[in-house]
Amino acid sequence: MKPIFRRVAVIGKYPGPGAVSASDSARQIIESIAQFVTQQDCELTLEAETAAHTGLTQYHTLDVEGIGRQCDLCLVVGGDGTMLGVGRRLAGYGTPLVGINQGRLGFITDIPLEGYQDALTPILHGDYEEDVRPLMQACVMRGGECVFEALALNDVVVNRGSTSGMVELRVEVDGVFVSNQRADGLIVASPTGSTAYALSAGGPMLHPSIPGWVLVPIAPHTLSNRPIVLSDATEVAIEVAGGRDISANFDMQSLASLQHGDRILVRRSAHRVCFLHPRGWSYFATLRKKLGWYEGGS
Amino acid sequence: MKPIFRRVAVIGKYPGPGAVSASDSARQIIESIAQFVTQQDCELTLEAETAAHTGLTQYHTLDVEGIGRQCDLCLVVGGDGTMLGVGRRLAGYGTPLVGINQGRLGFITDIPLEGYQDALTPILHGDYEEDVRPLMQACVMRGGECVFEALALNDVVVNRGSTSGMVELRVEVDGVFVSNQRADGLIVASPTGSTAYALSAGGPMLHPSIPGWVLVPIAPHTLSNRPIVLSDATEVAIEVAGGRDISANFDMQSLASLQHGDRILVRRSAHRVCFLHPRGWSYFATLRKKLGWYEGGS
Amino acid sequence: MKPIFRRVAVIGKYPGPGAVSASDSARQIIESIAQFVTQQDCELTLEAETAAHTGLTQYHTLDVEGIGRQCDLCLVVGGDGTMLGVGRRLAGYGTPLVGINQGRLGFITDIPLEGYQDALTPILHGDYEEDVRPLMQACVMRGGECVFEALALNDVVVNRGSTSGMVELRVEVDGVFVSNQRADGLIVASPTGSTAYALSAGGPMLHPSIPGWVLVPIAPHTLSNRPIVLSDATEVAIEVAGGRDISANFDMQSLASLQHGDRILVRRSAHRVCFLHPRGWSYFATLRKKLGWYEGGS
Amino acid sequence: MKPIFRRVAVIGKYPGPGAVSASDSARQIIESIAQFVTQQDCELTLEAETAAHTGLTQYHTLDVEGIGRQCDLCLVVGGDGTMLGVGRRLAGYGTPLVGINQGRLGFITDIPLEGYQDALTPILHGDYEEDVRPLMQACVMRGGECVFEALALNDVVVNRGSTSGMVELRVEVDGVFVSNQRADGLIVASPTGSTAYALSAGGPMLHPSIPGWVLVPIAPHTLSNRPIVLSDATEVAIEVAGGRDISANFDMQSLASLQHGDRILVRRSAHRVCFLHPRGWSYFATLRKKLGWYEGGS
Repeated sequence: MKPIFRRVAVIGKYPGPGAVSASDSARQIIESIAQFVTQQDCELTLEAETAAHTGLTQYHTLDVEGIGRQCDLCLVVGGDGTMLGVGRRLAGYGTPLVGINQGRLGFITDIPLEGYQDALTPILHGDYEEDVRPLMQACVMRGGECVFEALALNDVVVNRGSTSGMVELRVEVDGVFVSNQRADGLIVASPTGSTAYALSAGGPMLHPSIPGWVLVPIAPHTLSNRPIVLSDATEVAIEVAGGRDISANFDMQSLASLQHGDRILVRRSAHRVCFLHPRGWSYFATLRKKLGWYEGGS
Repeated sequence: MKPIFRRVAVIGKYPGPGAVSASDSARQIIESIAQFVTQQDCELTLEAETAAHTGLTQYHTLDVEGIGRQCDLCLVVGGDGTMLGVGRRLAGYGTPLVGINQGRLGFITDIPLEGYQDALTPILHGDYEEDVRPLMQACVMRGGECVFEALALNDVVVNRGSTSGMVELRVEVDGVFVSNQRADGLIVASPTGSTAYALSAGGPMLHPSIPGWVLVPIAPHTLSNRPIVLSDATEVAIEVAGGRDISANFDMQSLASLQHGDRILVRRSAHRVCFLHPRGWSYFATLRKKLGWYEGGS
Repeated sequence: MKPIFRRVAVIGKYPGPGAVSASDSARQIIESIAQFVTQQDCELTLEAETAAHTGLTQYHTLDVEGIGRQCDLCLVVGGDGTMLGVGRRLAGYGTPLVGINQGRLGFITDIPLEGYQDALTPILHGDYEEDVRPLMQACVMRGGECVFEALALNDVVVNRGSTSGMVELRVEVDGVFVSNQRADGLIVASPTGSTAYALSAGGPMLHPSIPGWVLVPIAPHTLSNRPIVLSDATEVAIEVAGGRDISANFDMQSLASLQHGDRILVRRSAHRVCFLHPRGWSYFATLRKKLGWYEGGS
Repeated sequence: MKPIFRRVAVIGKYPGPGAVSASDSARQIIESIAQFVTQQDCELTLEAETAAHTGLTQYHTLDVEGIGRQCDLCLVVGGDGTMLGVGRRLAGYGTPLVGINQGRLGFITDIPLEGYQDALTPILHGDYEEDVRPLMQACVMRGGECVFEALALNDVVVNRGSTSGMVELRVEVDGVFVSNQRADGLIVASPTGSTAYALSAGGPMLHPSIPGWVLVPIAPHTLSNRPIVLSDATEVAIEVAGGRDISANFDMQSLASLQHGDRILVRRSAHRVCFLHPRGWSYFATLRKKLGWYEGGS
């Protein structure tokens, strides 16, 4: 039987510009996966920078956008951070992603490198669990103009610098005043981001099926400024009302030096990211494992 | 201009069976509201027990179910607890409710007795904010049979007794294992209930537009057993797996003496409750006031 | 060289009255330890009920109070709960305790059954870490009389029943009004108890050297009613001001049916409990292990 | 009767270098207090910069250190921040402080400007509550040398910058390894600081009589890294083990650009700060007021 995903891309951990070449072991991992994909009767594409870094020049290559336009599936070799980055870039194309991870498994990258073949084969043939995640579209408005724009799968964070005091942030939802937050900062997290930084700051977990964002203040001055879950069909606006040395961070991509009056707007993107997991995958099993929950029975 | 709500019912704070008669001041309040409603060209109905307790026998009376069947609007004089009780009973009929409160305003009863006329007049003529709240339908299954059933607007709580240790509760969503909670108890709260007991136990607030419940463990033994927001389109099952002297509470209506193996099932009810507020009412303004949030500007 | 502890007692997990006899394996464990102690040139005493339950009738026996009066060291075979119980009963005599545990190690019982000999030998010869813990002396006053008295190593807890609403508790310190707590209950925890129930309810950890108790409200109605650490040189009074079906619990020993006006008084006991640990034992290493802290390096 | 404090200093809110002159109203306030002190038969000293800023040149002046050496009491006109600053500078001299505040009262400045005379008169004559607070002595060690030293009344905070990820901090107490904290930062707070930033970050309150510091991680990655109270007789060391753009802050006085391997050492200072309050002052009453606790009775 033919795989249902015919054109399959492979992307390795995405090093920054100017990074040194990949290690031998990284090259061997990518090569092994590339060969496996080819043996499955799929057409392999290697992401261009991954090819360059690993020196695997014998394969068909495309850049990430080309992969989005031409491939049916994208295998990402790396951790949650790599998946988030590739996910944002492929979101506009609807290409589903599968994460293969060498070290500790993540919240979304759940196929261990060891024995990945057994997990991948059924997925390539259409036997998988689909895991669709909403995406945030954020922009920073200054004097009526958008000075920065970004997508975020995890969170949008506005926070103070290391030697400055509190920020004061005025929150509005669809133009309605919600609260003035005096705090170290404020996180707007998607369900995906709710198990990341927002959880550390005291936020709840949101199941991926919840169409909402959670606003989590970081070290709020007013103790009753607790996390609040808002509909993702609204526009959340965060206006810088006080403080200095303030930054906005979109999945850790930063815009520093925000000014008083700047407004960070967060909406649901028209696009979503689709992760595929092996049949039997469970969101809750991942939580239990990652968070060390008691499983019962002792 | 005629009011758009023609048949208007009035219900006073609902005393338990065997309660003594209402005080003079309670009678005067109900009478004043009844006269006001009549003067607005509405047909007044007084809830039968309210009439009996206040001795206001000159009005047309109906029981709560009759009000549901025959009236267009129901004015409730009392606090949030009274509103919750009436709301549950009227939910099946779709009758909207308006809350008038003598003391401290609540999260859902927001018209102060003092000057209620100015707030009510526009509402009766169709100028209001609608505030629709989902309702939980819960049952307790024992040996394959439902031994208790209840609706809840706020929360379903399973918890230990005063001299017993932890309970152990096995949580499933649509048959999928979520977690084993060893704790004082577990709260399943609606958006309405998220600002009540669940907030005290460390849960987030859920905006009423969020189609979800929040599960909040009370004093969980495992520190990473944090609140989680689940879709209200699922069935949440809580199975009693350990502990003794355990009760289930549905908006504080209790079923004591749960047994190991009992399963509390929580689904979204087909019915919803509709509260009407004066134009300009804001959910967030209510939060700011009730929770003492800083408003900015100083 | 002679051991510095000459008369050494052994106590097994203390079953309640009417308990069935100990299992074969429990008997073998106690017997093995008894023989080991004897081989170390110590005079062995077996606690009388332990002897009765295990059928080990060939040894010198004493009840717990007799052990306190006549022995130099007490080996306790069981978990933290068993240690707490024996610790309270021996506190008045100053007998140091060593905990041997069959299953998961506890916060205070840290010698694994497997290979206990290697850990015990140096302790018997005076090479150990001393770990002294304060003890709470609590009484319940009703109408000017003490109606219940207890010692507690972990905590004193006043809390509501399973189907009742909040309790209201008025807290005073040395006669000075501190706060009115409306909550599920209130915990007064010692440093030892700060890593037990109080931690689940949101309290901080107190190092055993801190001469203080931490008051931790359980699910407090007022969000700013946060845990507070008070000097253990004071008398903490908790007066039942509201609620029903209220109990006081002293290390889980319960007094049910508290009445309005009852006052629970908590003072530092003149006695302390002394646990001995193998050289190199570290309070912080125990925390890291029990709480699953990250150790660095990855 | 003569006041027991003969030489009394007055310090106004301390403006930074290059600040413009004080407003007319600030001058009038200082002048009124100066005249009142003189009328009480005390010898008045005006702090030199306060005199310069207000243009009140007719009084005897001294700098803060001179006040410490020569005066018996120091009246501080300003908020908690001003008191902290003056308190640190006078700590070495043992001069007691009284705080007079124009706006909202603080945790330690509790005499309202309006009617301050009634509150001050008994204090000057020896009728007051003494409120002694410990002081932290901190230094930053780099390559075996102390590169920064500071006193702190509230807290020592090590935290990340606005666009950087987590810091990793290795904590030791008297050379014993406690924990590796991966977080936004870590607060070491005194009892005085426990009601400030540390409370926002989830820490408990410590009564001023507790001889301890509380370590509060800010948004810790490991959820069980909860606040811990340690004896102030120990030396707490925080080593920068990971992260970038890290700062140390001592009562908000900052040292930026910490390097990996830098160690922040915190010890109890030999000095303490003594605040005087009107007779009847209560630490707990201040908490109730500042934190909006329920007082009972409704």
